[in-house]
Amino acid sequence: MTEFKHVYISEISKYEGQDVCLKGWLHGKRSSGKLHFLQVRDGTGHIQAVIFKGDVDEEMFKAADALTQESSIVICGTVKEDKRSKIGYEIGVKSVKLITESIEYPITPKEHGVAFLLEHRHLWLRAPRQQAIMKIRHQIIKSVRDYFDQNGFTLVDAPIFTPSACEGTTNLFETTYFEEKAYLTQSGQLYMEAAAMALGKAYCFGPTFRAEKSKTRRHLTEFWMVEPEVAYNDLNDNMDLAEDFVEYVVQEVVKNNRKELEVLDRDISKLENVKKPFPRISYDDAVEILRKNGQTFEWGDDFGAEDETTISEQFDKPIMIHRYPSECKAFYMKPDTENEKLALCVDMIAPEGYGEIIGGGQREDDLDVLLTKIKEHELPQEAFEWYLDLRRYGSVPHAGFGMGIERAVSWICGLHHVRETIPFPRLMDRIRP
Amino acid sequence: MTEFKHVYISEISKYEGQDVCLKGWLHGKRSSGKLHFLQVRDGTGHIQAVIFKGDVDEEMFKAADALTQESSIVICGTVKEDKRSKIGYEIGVKSVKLITESIEYPITPKEHGVAFLLEHRHLWLRAPRQQAIMKIRHQIIKSVRDYFDQNGFTLVDAPIFTPSACEGTTNLFETTYFEEKAYLTQSGQLYMEAAAMALGKAYCFGPTFRAEKSKTRRHLTEFWMVEPEVAYNDLNDNMDLAEDFVEYVVQEVVKNNRKELEVLDRDISKLENVKKPFPRISYDDAVEILRKNGQTFEWGDDFGAEDETTISEQFDKPIMIHRYPSECKAFYMKPDTENEKLALCVDMIAPEGYGEIIGGGQREDDLDVLLTKIKEHELPQEAFEWYLDLRRYGSVPHAGFGMGIERAVSWICGLHHVRETIPFPRLMDRIRP
Repeated sequence: MTEFKHVYISEISKYEGQDVCLKGWLHGKRSSGKLHFLQVRDGTGHIQAVIFKGDVDEEMFKAADALTQESSIVICGTVKEDKRSKIGYEIGVKSVKLITESIEYPITPKEHGVAFLLEHRHLWLRAPRQQAIMKIRHQIIKSVRDYFDQNGFTLVDAPIFTPSACEGTTNLFETTYFEEKAYLTQSGQLYMEAAAMALGKAYCFGPTFRAEKSKTRRHLTEFWMVEPEVAYNDLNDNMDLAEDFVEYVVQEVVKNNRKELEVLDRDISKLENVKKPFPRISYDDAVEILRKNGQTFEWGDDFGAEDETTISEQFDKPIMIHRYPSECKAFYMKPDTENEKLALCVDMIAPEGYGEIIGGGQREDDLDVLLTKIKEHELPQEAFEWYLDLRRYGSVPHAGFGMGIERAVSWICGLHHVRETIPFPRLMDRIRP
Repeated sequence: MTEFKHVYISEISKYEGQDVCLKGWLHGKRSSGKLHFLQVRDGTGHIQAVIFKGDVDEEMFKAADALTQESSIVICGTVKEDKRSKIGYEIGVKSVKLITESIEYPITPKEHGVAFLLEHRHLWLRAPRQQAIMKIRHQIIKSVRDYFDQNGFTLVDAPIFTPSACEGTTNLFETTYFEEKAYLTQSGQLYMEAAAMALGKAYCFGPTFRAEKSKTRRHLTEFWMVEPEVAYNDLNDNMDLAEDFVEYVVQEVVKNNRKELEVLDRDISKLENVKKPFPRISYDDAVEILRKNGQTFEWGDDFGAEDETTISEQFDKPIMIHRYPSECKAFYMKPDTENEKLALCVDMIAPEGYGEIIGGGQREDDLDVLLTKIKEHELPQEAFEWYLDLRRYGSVPHAGFGMGIERAVSWICGLHHVRETIPFPRLMDRIRP
């Protein structure tokens, strides 16, 4: 066995003209009499390895012909420039070593149904499209964190176990926590408000859970959410932050993942266009748009998926809709002093019909108003005493928002369904593998 | 109200000689007849703001005297160099504005018991020591991610909901997942093995859960873990990776968090010493050390906290103990071909008695051996079919490890108990706030 330096396909350009070894898997193969063309993948990329009959001994040439899809192999040979190749290089093979044979790999190049593919998610992740999605997801998460880290935010992980089902247990997953009941978090926001009072600018980023009996293309039971919160920010600051943040994340993907976006046939110009400023319209403006487009819509209702699509179609960028009626928003939203029926909240709607990606707003910072709201909503005040403390001891205006990562991945990758945006999706009817 | 540019204390050095506003809280105060010295915090740092009686109107000077701990205030004035100050600057105040008064803030400068402080965790986070810990935690998490991102790993989030309690339900949190039972993950490792076969180098980083009825200083029910896994790595590669990784994380904290380490009175020289290579000793060597130190120890047992301390005291760096008896390790550990009774595993023990921070090893990659192990351990084969697929379709040697973030924070910060290493700790007897 020839033993050269082990390198990864992603760094192959550094080794032109040199002998190297690749450790990976056979993705595909074609042969002519004197030549085998092996498509090799190692998780960092794909490359073509060419075996000339005269370059290796007869047995090895024969063995290469028998290699099956997804067999693990170590290929050693010379890195050669190849202008026709997508990555610009190929390998002139000096030796091939089979590590383990793969017999009847279930995911063949033919089309498979989604149920079958999800059942084989542990293998489906090897497909080029899925790898492209995972790499873009990786970049999105990295950019989200980089953005907040570079802008003076402190990461403050919110807890997963929460003690009380403050707003009803309908959509909560429950567990027995030693002597009592506990619930899996739906949002770290209340904790981030405490964190912002301590650290000025804080964010959490972790999994959140919704036990919704919903099978739409936008719902997962387990999904990741980032939630920044800033002391002394008002609604306008919050919109400035959300806009600057989303521009950064999208442009980082455009800059770093062109190759992956092409694998997904994503229209990159649509993403390049995601630059500030984003349109800011009021809820009332949005209702007006719906009515102008012939839709009936009751003032006071929240927008449905279809409404969001209609509104977003009027613009070629994400839009921010602010000042919804208080009645359709959570109790902790601060009312607009200019019109007490409106909340100082904002939702960001992605373009191209991908729906809401951000929800947030300015929080009620007055102790008495908050106490009244808790009573009005018939919430158990005791469970909120710690949250009320934030208004008792040096309350300040503050605002924040949450962005669901899978919705963002779905939009940026141009995917119809969120189930492909997360490595191991959890849906109402799916908890395996 | 004077209105100058709002700046953060962390960036104050950029504004020497300029008029600015700080938005924060009153941390402390002392006064002489003509002067008030306000200690102001804004989450990014602390600064002294000096009010001369002659510089502000009488009413404002009087109001400043009445300011209470943790009242929220906006201070405007001139940034002046001050050599005696820790941050090198102070503010010559031109105006003070009270935002909200804080009456009888519960955490006074006197000593409080830990139970009281944990009960007030949402406020305790405002204390300088807690802020220092949170900032070091932030840096550790950032460095962990940076390390893997810079070294070609793809982030592949493991699921939180897992369908089967493969190794017994004793320490698992259970929930009803629509029609069936689900359990909260204890480790993403098996999923990372699938990810490594797809992406070559993968890692997950998320919360994990243990329902242990244990009240030791090292146990949380909810803690964060990072788990890298690399295709084609063996035990030695795995130790190289773990060592390089830990050196990077610790040295990044030394470089970026000197100020916070000083707040915690951490002996920084101990951390500076955490440079490769780390000692690598076998389990047998470790047993020898215990016996030489007069401890009785049965070959085949796992090391307890006390044993770890005795062993680690012989070294001034983290040490890696490899090749434990297979019987005290999980079924998926690959045996050493040179001695089938030993597993190709490794634990890393932190110095100074901080105990195990990393556990990992090379995984069994042979289908038949793994099938036999599953039978021997009386595990339900059906639940592992997807995991076995990884051995059916192009199996390769692979290895990885897990590092508990709170254990690492505890060691690096020099904290006795893990409860202060996470923003909102969840312990057997604590799920609030």
